[in-house]
Amino acid sequence: MEEIITLDYGSGGKKTSRLIEKYIVPRFDNAALKSLGDGAVIPGGETLAFSTDSFVVDPLFFPGGDIGKLAVCGTVNDIAMCGAEPRYLSCSLILEEGLEMETLERVLQSMSAAAEAAGVQIVTGDTKVVDRGRGDKLYINTAGIGVMRHALGGLQAVKPGDAVLVSGTVGDHGTAVMLARSGMMQGEVKSDCAALNRLTEAMLASVGGIRILRDPTRGGLATTLNEFTEGQLFGIELEEAAIPVRPEVQASCDMLGLEPIYCANEGKLTCICASEDAEMLLRVMHALPEGENAAVIGRVTEEAAGKVVMKTDLGGRRILQKLAGAQLPRIC
Amino acid sequence: MEEIITLDYGSGGKKTSRLIEKYIVPRFDNAALKSLGDGAVIPGGETLAFSTDSFVVDPLFFPGGDIGKLAVCGTVNDIAMCGAEPRYLSCSLILEEGLEMETLERVLQSMSAAAEAAGVQIVTGDTKVVDRGRGDKLYINTAGIGVMRHALGGLQAVKPGDAVLVSGTVGDHGTAVMLARSGMMQGEVKSDCAALNRLTEAMLASVGGIRILRDPTRGGLATTLNEFTEGQLFGIELEEAAIPVRPEVQASCDMLGLEPIYCANEGKLTCICASEDAEMLLRVMHALPEGENAAVIGRVTEEAAGKVVMKTDLGGRRILQKLAGAQLPRIC
Repeated sequence: MEEIITLDYGSGGKKTSRLIEKYIVPRFDNAALKSLGDGAVIPGGETLAFSTDSFVVDPLFFPGGDIGKLAVCGTVNDIAMCGAEPRYLSCSLILEEGLEMETLERVLQSMSAAAEAAGVQIVTGDTKVVDRGRGDKLYINTAGIGVMRHALGGLQAVKPGDAVLVSGTVGDHGTAVMLARSGMMQGEVKSDCAALNRLTEAMLASVGGIRILRDPTRGGLATTLNEFTEGQLFGIELEEAAIPVRPEVQASCDMLGLEPIYCANEGKLTCICASEDAEMLLRVMHALPEGENAAVIGRVTEEAAGKVVMKTDLGGRRILQKLAGAQLPRIC
Repeated sequence: MEEIITLDYGSGGKKTSRLIEKYIVPRFDNAALKSLGDGAVIPGGETLAFSTDSFVVDPLFFPGGDIGKLAVCGTVNDIAMCGAEPRYLSCSLILEEGLEMETLERVLQSMSAAAEAAGVQIVTGDTKVVDRGRGDKLYINTAGIGVMRHALGGLQAVKPGDAVLVSGTVGDHGTAVMLARSGMMQGEVKSDCAALNRLTEAMLASVGGIRILRDPTRGGLATTLNEFTEGQLFGIELEEAAIPVRPEVQASCDMLGLEPIYCANEGKLTCICASEDAEMLLRVMHALPEGENAAVIGRVTEEAAGKVVMKTDLGGRRILQKLAGAQLPRIC
């Protein structure tokens, strides 16, 4: 086997077979994947959640993760946020001619480890190769299926007084990737890339008042909270001092001219829940490493309907908009 | 809205929302897609088929289809070949900075029409933008879920004497794309790009002896039949004269130095079935436009185990290998 990807590997012929059989299938070993053909047959029975994401992060490897771990955790999290238990993933690769086989192996190994850690199986996939200069080493798409476990109230259940929580420090992933890309010192800032399905399951099993869960990825916490309030009859008021930010992330953001609340997270969630459930929910979250820095960061208000307002450390009030432009392209 | 894609559209912020709300959601309008969040919740109940494919075809538009139609039909067909009824698709876009919005619209319109024709819903999706020179206008991933309707015998049920069928002329798609790419005259040769779920349903409902179904895409008919025989105790003997090939496809292949049996198809299937079912199956296939040129092209043999042998028009015998290299990169 050559040590780099050539166009042959995308032909659908012998080389494609060898790539799949030698590199890909052994990493994701399971009965559904081994079954013949391009589709996987999986046992069913319940209402399903279905999600997909393509990953184009640059660079492929960064402190705390890589494109493979990201591709597994990202789709696992999208499914977990629906109140579902993630079960099965697909993995589709777009390889650029010239990619080192060793790089591909590292990424597949990382996907395999992340899938095992999250308790999901990669059961079907696809491989395409594009000519040099028409990709950037490696893009990955994952789609996922989960089984619905908990019905969430949804935005229509949100009431003034409800609590707004975040599961930990914000901005870690976006800052880590920007530092890695710029080649600046990166030792201290690590991506938070992690699967959150264990956390969501514990949260949803413990209280009934969770209205909505969302992982604030591209666009960060500020953008996700705007997605909650947009067009609604309620607003959100945040306490800047209550939002957990690692000092090294804040320092790096200051240097890069970014704001942590607009930087992507890949292992955090934000949620709105009934105020009487907030304390119990925090206890449950603090008991797991994924939620050890969870905090109540604000509340739902009748005023400022449709808006997200932040009470700043200096006592002022600031309206947070959605991220307006390309703050951080190719962050995931 | 600008007329080209800029990096902003991939930021996860305002522009991404506008792209999704203005261009994407209206095309694929359905209840599951409109539900909040990154995942779709879909009603479940049965054993499922799950498949994915990324599409990187060059050029995006070719006689008989485009990347959008291909992305829908390709995944629909992978699911149909499992014996399942395709139901739900995801759609994930990797857009290159600078893509004309008009091009994207045409492709989305084509996906929407293809989904409607095939009876499937696009229920979830994702959009990423990569910088200029790191993609090629537009790559699409679709993943799909289908509900299992028919259990196939599988390769273990194949017996000497079984019939090998193809649903129509071979090589149309690969030849059409190669001609379009080379800029040569292309009026006569059209891609066969089509959804085959209606055909497979009719076939599986009519006879019980279908062992295996497969759509011979990249690598063509010869490669797919090799996937059937590889490592098995049976071989396949084909009659060259029985394999349907359009004269204009044969002429173009001769000119391009290609062989139709190694060229991709995107609206054809091949199957192995019990010999006593072959006649009935042909009748059922001939009754649908997708199967109007269906033919028995060979049979399963005890001799030449593991191999595909073709009796040529001139009376000779030739062993068909899997496609060895990159005959046709970026054909789908």
